Amino acid sequence: MNEFELIHTYLSRHADKLDDECLLGVGDDAAILRPNADADIHISSDMLVGGRHFFTDVRPEDLAHKILAVNLSDMAAMGATPRWALLSAGLPQLDKTWLDAFCNAFFTLADAHQVRLIGGDTTRADWVFNLTIIGQTPRGRALRRDAAQVGDDIWVSGRLGLAAAALDDQWLKVRLPETTFTTCEAQRLRPQARVRLGEALRDIAHAAQDISDGLLQDLNHILHASSCAADIWLEHIPSLPDLQEFAEYHQWILAGGDDYELLFTAPPEQREAVLQAAQASQTPISRIGIVRKGTACRVLTADGSEYLETHQGFDHFA
Amino acid sequence: MNEFELIHTYLSRHADKLDDECLLGVGDDAAILRPNADADIHISSDMLVGGRHFFTDVRPEDLAHKILAVNLSDMAAMGATPRWALLSAGLPQLDKTWLDAFCNAFFTLADAHQVRLIGGDTTRADWVFNLTIIGQTPRGRALRRDAAQVGDDIWVSGRLGLAAAALDDQWLKVRLPETTFTTCEAQRLRPQARVRLGEALRDIAHAAQDISDGLLQDLNHILHASSCAADIWLEHIPSLPDLQEFAEYHQWILAGGDDYELLFTAPPEQREAVLQAAQASQTPISRIGIVRKGTACRVLTADGSEYLETHQGFDHFA
Repeated sequence: MNEFELIHTYLSRHADKLDDECLLGVGDDAAILRPNADADIHISSDMLVGGRHFFTDVRPEDLAHKILAVNLSDMAAMGATPRWALLSAGLPQLDKTWLDAFCNAFFTLADAHQVRLIGGDTTRADWVFNLTIIGQTPRGRALRRDAAQVGDDIWVSGRLGLAAAALDDQWLKVRLPETTFTTCEAQRLRPQARVRLGEALRDIAHAAQDISDGLLQDLNHILHASSCAADIWLEHIPSLPDLQEFAEYHQWILAGGDDYELLFTAPPEQREAVLQAAQASQTPISRIGIVRKGTACRVLTADGSEYLETHQGFDHFA
Repeated sequence: MNEFELIHTYLSRHADKLDDECLLGVGDDAAILRPNADADIHISSDMLVGGRHFFTDVRPEDLAHKILAVNLSDMAAMGATPRWALLSAGLPQLDKTWLDAFCNAFFTLADAHQVRLIGGDTTRADWVFNLTIIGQTPRGRALRRDAAQVGDDIWVSGRLGLAAAALDDQWLKVRLPETTFTTCEAQRLRPQARVRLGEALRDIAHAAQDISDGLLQDLNHILHASSCAADIWLEHIPSLPDLQEFAEYHQWILAGGDDYELLFTAPPEQREAVLQAAQASQTPISRIGIVRKGTACRVLTADGSEYLETHQGFDHFA
C-alpha cells in the first residue's frame, strides 16, 4: 500500500458527499467550500504527538476518537456547529488492521456530528496527527473568550480531573481503585465534546472556552481576555467523589488537563435558560463561581478562606 | 519561555490585524472568518516532518519559507488567492534565536502575499509542522484537476528537477559542480509558489496542479481525474542545462519531487492569453505536451519514440 492507496481506500469516504456548501473534498490541491452567506466560519487546528498527547500503543479507535473530539471541543467552545475537517497523519507504517479500526472510529464520530473529511495529508513519521476543523455559527453569535462580564456566573460541564487522575495512575504516581480507574480512563480516552451544549448556549452565555490545560489556566484565558477576575468555589467543582481521598485531588480538578469540558460565563438572569440548555443537550453542568472586578482568580474553600494552588495547569513546553 | 509566551511573543503578530473578513485571529478557541459572499473558499493542509521533508539542521529562515511556500503552491494550483493560515509547530525546544529567524522569515513571506496567521497549535515534538492555508477565488472559477480536455496544451512553469538534483547531491548520490549545486539547492530550499500565475490563469486554463511529487505522477492525477491521456515531449521539459549530462537527469525532471512548479492545461486557442498571463506574473513557462484520448501518459523523445521511465515519482510511504 502506498500513500495514494491509503488516501483512496481509507480517507476518501466522504469524497463524493458534495453539496451546495462543499463543492470539492479529498482529491485535489484543496477542498472548495461555499458556506452559507449568513454564517460566520470558525476554524481551529490541534496537533497531537505520540508519547506526548497519547501513548503510542493506544488503541486506534480510541486515538481516532480523541483526535476528532478535542477539535470538536474547540468548536463547542465557540458555540459553533462543526462541519468540515482536514486530517494530517504521520504514521510509522501502514497497517491495514490498524487503519481499519482508526478510520471506522474516526468516521463514526464524524458522521455522528455530520462532519465531513474534506482534505489533509499523509506521510511517514513517528506518530503525529494534526486536525483542522471548520464550523459555523449564525453571524456574530460566537461564544468568545473576551465577552465575560462582571457579575456573570461561572459554569462548567461534566466532571473535572478524571483524565488527570487516570494519567497519574498510568504513570504510577497513584493507584486508583479498579472501578475508579476504569471510569477515569474512559473519560481520558473518550472525551465527549460538548457541541450540543455550546450550540444551545449561543444566545445565553457570554464567554466560553473548553478546558484542555486545566480549569484555572483556561479560566484565566477568559479573565485575561475579558479584563476581569473571578471567585471559584472549590467545593462546587464537579468531579468523581472517589477521587477526593487522594492528595492530588485539588491539583486534578484545578489544573488537570485533558478534561474537554465546557467552561462558560452567563449573567445570573439567564440561570433558568442555562439549565434548560443543559437539559436540552443532556449535559450535566455545575455553577462554580462568579466573575468580579479585579485581575486575579481566587479559589475559595467552604469557610470563605482562599485556597492557594501553585500548580497552574499544563504547559506543553514544561 | 512557555507555550503561551511563545504564542504571545512570536506567533501573534497578526492577532490585531482584523477586518470585515477576519473577525478574530490567534488567541481564542478558533479564529472567526466572514468571507465575502461572492467568493469560494479553498482550504488545504500540508504536514512537514523533520528528517523526511527537511533536514533538521536546516536554517530556520529556509524552513519557515518552505513550510509556507508549499502551501501557497497548493493555492496557486487552484488559481486561488491565499488569505489566511494556521500553523501547528512541534519543536524539540524553544530557542529564541531560532524562533526569531523562523518567525521573521515566515511573516516576511506571509506579508508579501498578504496572508494572515489566524491560528494553530504549539507543542513539544521532534520537528514537525502542519500548515493549513485558506484562499479564495471568485465563485466557480477554481482550476480543478478534473477539468482537462482532449486537445489541451500542457504547460509547466519554471524549471523541473533542480530540487531533486540538489537532494541527490546532499545524499552523495551525485556530485554537482558547485555553482550548479548552489542554483539547485536554492530552488530546493526556497521554492517560489506560483500564486500570481495561478490567479492570472483563472479564466484561461482548464486544469492545474502543483508539482510536488514529480511531473509524471502529478500529471497522472490530472489525467486520471479528467479521464484522458497525454503525450509529453521529453526535450521540451524545462530544466537546468548543466544537469543534462547526469545519468539521473530524466529521473530528476520526470519524477523529482519538491519542484512546486505549476502544471496546467489550456486549450490551444488560449496560447496567446497563457503567454500574456505568464508575462504579467513574470513567470517563465514552457509548453511540454498535449492532452489526448486514452488512459496513459506517454513521454516522447525528439524522434517520436516513446521514452520508458520506471521511476514514477515520490511515494511518502515507499
